[in-house]
Amino acid sequence: MKIIVAGGDGFCGWPTALYLSKQGHEVSIVDNLVRRKMDEELHSNSVTPIASLEERVAKWKELTGKEIKTFIGDLNHYDFLREVFKQTNPDAFVHFAEQRSAPYSMIDREHAVFTQSNNVIGNLNVLFAIKELAPDCHLIKLGTMGEYGAPNIDIEEGYIEIEHNGRKDKLPYPKQPGSFYHLSKVHDSHNIMFACKIWGIRATDLNQGIVYGLHTDETELHPILNNRLDYDGVFGTALNRFLIQSAIGHDLTVYGAGGQTRSFLNIKDTVRCIEIAANNPAEKGEFRVFNQFTEYFSVKELAERTKRVAEEMGLSPKIANIENPRIEAEEHYYHAVNTNLRDLGLEPNLLTDEVLKEILNVALDNKDRVIKENVLPQVTWK
Amino acid sequence: MKIIVAGGDGFCGWPTALYLSKQGHEVSIVDNLVRRKMDEELHSNSVTPIASLEERVAKWKELTGKEIKTFIGDLNHYDFLREVFKQTNPDAFVHFAEQRSAPYSMIDREHAVFTQSNNVIGNLNVLFAIKELAPDCHLIKLGTMGEYGAPNIDIEEGYIEIEHNGRKDKLPYPKQPGSFYHLSKVHDSHNIMFACKIWGIRATDLNQGIVYGLHTDETELHPILNNRLDYDGVFGTALNRFLIQSAIGHDLTVYGAGGQTRSFLNIKDTVRCIEIAANNPAEKGEFRVFNQFTEYFSVKELAERTKRVAEEMGLSPKIANIENPRIEAEEHYYHAVNTNLRDLGLEPNLLTDEVLKEILNVALDNKDRVIKENVLPQVTWK
Repeated sequence: MKIIVAGGDGFCGWPTALYLSKQGHEVSIVDNLVRRKMDEELHSNSVTPIASLEERVAKWKELTGKEIKTFIGDLNHYDFLREVFKQTNPDAFVHFAEQRSAPYSMIDREHAVFTQSNNVIGNLNVLFAIKELAPDCHLIKLGTMGEYGAPNIDIEEGYIEIEHNGRKDKLPYPKQPGSFYHLSKVHDSHNIMFACKIWGIRATDLNQGIVYGLHTDETELHPILNNRLDYDGVFGTALNRFLIQSAIGHDLTVYGAGGQTRSFLNIKDTVRCIEIAANNPAEKGEFRVFNQFTEYFSVKELAERTKRVAEEMGLSPKIANIENPRIEAEEHYYHAVNTNLRDLGLEPNLLTDEVLKEILNVALDNKDRVIKENVLPQVTWK
Repeated sequence: MKIIVAGGDGFCGWPTALYLSKQGHEVSIVDNLVRRKMDEELHSNSVTPIASLEERVAKWKELTGKEIKTFIGDLNHYDFLREVFKQTNPDAFVHFAEQRSAPYSMIDREHAVFTQSNNVIGNLNVLFAIKELAPDCHLIKLGTMGEYGAPNIDIEEGYIEIEHNGRKDKLPYPKQPGSFYHLSKVHDSHNIMFACKIWGIRATDLNQGIVYGLHTDETELHPILNNRLDYDGVFGTALNRFLIQSAIGHDLTVYGAGGQTRSFLNIKDTVRCIEIAANNPAEKGEFRVFNQFTEYFSVKELAERTKRVAEEMGLSPKIANIENPRIEAEEHYYHAVNTNLRDLGLEPNLLTDEVLKEILNVALDNKDRVIKENVLPQVTWK
């Protein structure tokens, strides 16, 4: 299958590109490399040293004989995107190429506007490119479980049957996103649903949970293939951040009471979910939603688990409940359905102590790279 | 009250500015005059001759002694918007200043991108300006009944209580908008809801039906105060378009079967609804939704009514069911609640034969101005 991985230089995109390439697909990466520029903007970095995209794909070819094409440019430039479609004629377009940090979108007005404009318009361009140049191409779009917020009823996969005043309909599940970033994904979902309806585009919206982990079988092959590992208050996600805080002897910073419950999955399952979606495309005109996570935990539970595992490894982290920089419920009901991907064959890599130890070891090996002042939240919702 | 009317040079905004000024409010118009430029782009015009904004406000001052300040600029330019807020320190911000045509947003990719970028980013800027410079200012935002689409259950005002698997929550009403324009309003609604929650902004989202009519008591005072009247396939709304087609002897073009049912209101009620919202502001942090319409009709009913009234006036229009340029259900359930504004005192101006005759007379008086090739749809959803 000819597959474009947009955002293929990033934390999820890079391992996905490798995994799909290994399965024999003809993979092309589209990336504007902006994530690396954001490190410079924020004076931050990846805990793991990462090679340039050029070095990465060259090493992959050297090791496996498989070629991954690269297109360096921005989805917001339609002429560029059209050229990519013409040259690749894709069967599937995997779309990771969005600004993906909630705190980044909350820095100030410029960052909020950038996030929504970049994500929404970039995605609109992808929809128009599919319509214009590859009408059978399957859009595999990364959404987020954060689109749903934390409603007091069970979260279904994209749609909910509502009975009201004696009548029934199956309607888009109501969304209550909690940042300008999460909002951008909700806007995308609405735009894609409409494009499927009017143009017959086939699309899968993957509402992904928070990804933890680092290695996949492919990125482990050689240090040049290393995945990035974020720990800062802007791009570091909860579990990875706790592990790196343990490694450098910093308190594990739980925002508020820590009862916030969120969905999680291992990066190894991210790459597999994309493959499952690609191998089982949506029908023409179908807007399909999968909730892409395997387990959920409260932030407090994750901190406690990290603490225990770190202690077993001779470290002595403390849990610190700091003022929550976000406006969100710190105790709430949470139950979300995730059977669609399981039904198509996903076998979850659950969060074991081994997984935690593996990431912690990487963090310990690279702890000199950690910029300590970056681990605390510097962006507030207020 | 100090009130900004953004989009105050347009079809709804201009009569609203006059009406609020007459009630004694200190009104400032913000407008980038882009609607006039779109007439040039589309080689179209208003059936009624319209004066420049400068002439309009000068005449209003001459007739009533009341001053309406004008600020010519774009909400997408934040420095400009900030200056407007600093100079006016508004108690209410009435936001009509968006690209408001569904067909315009469907012309091509550029128009879709323009519509979403212009509307969503402009509105984000308004939210940031309120937060930064006038935190008590009440945002009165024009949404559209089209945000809801045509679900098979009753449409509530913004929220719906859902019982699911034995639990309950009151959640945002699911949205199924039918064009890139309608989608932009859905995106706005989500953004505003979030800003209310995190920053304590007070906002009223007015999901307005399709507006018909032309005159208000204020615009009738003098020809220089004339409101614009659109009839083309891009900006003309159903009923106004049928009336003008009658006047020029053109078939009344019903899209498809004509069973599409939509909400309607008279322009005289639009201006009154804004006043009601302004006089009864939302609470701090409240995101309030009012469905702003008074009646609903199928497109077929409107065509038949127009035909009957036109015949009484000696005209002989025919109804022509033409191929529907849109992708939409042509027969569907439709029931929408609109009690919030009624409960606050709205007394509807219903659609009488007199109202139809009045608009038809204006159209007849100005029929030489009508550019005939513009009355047919030239934009398709396909």
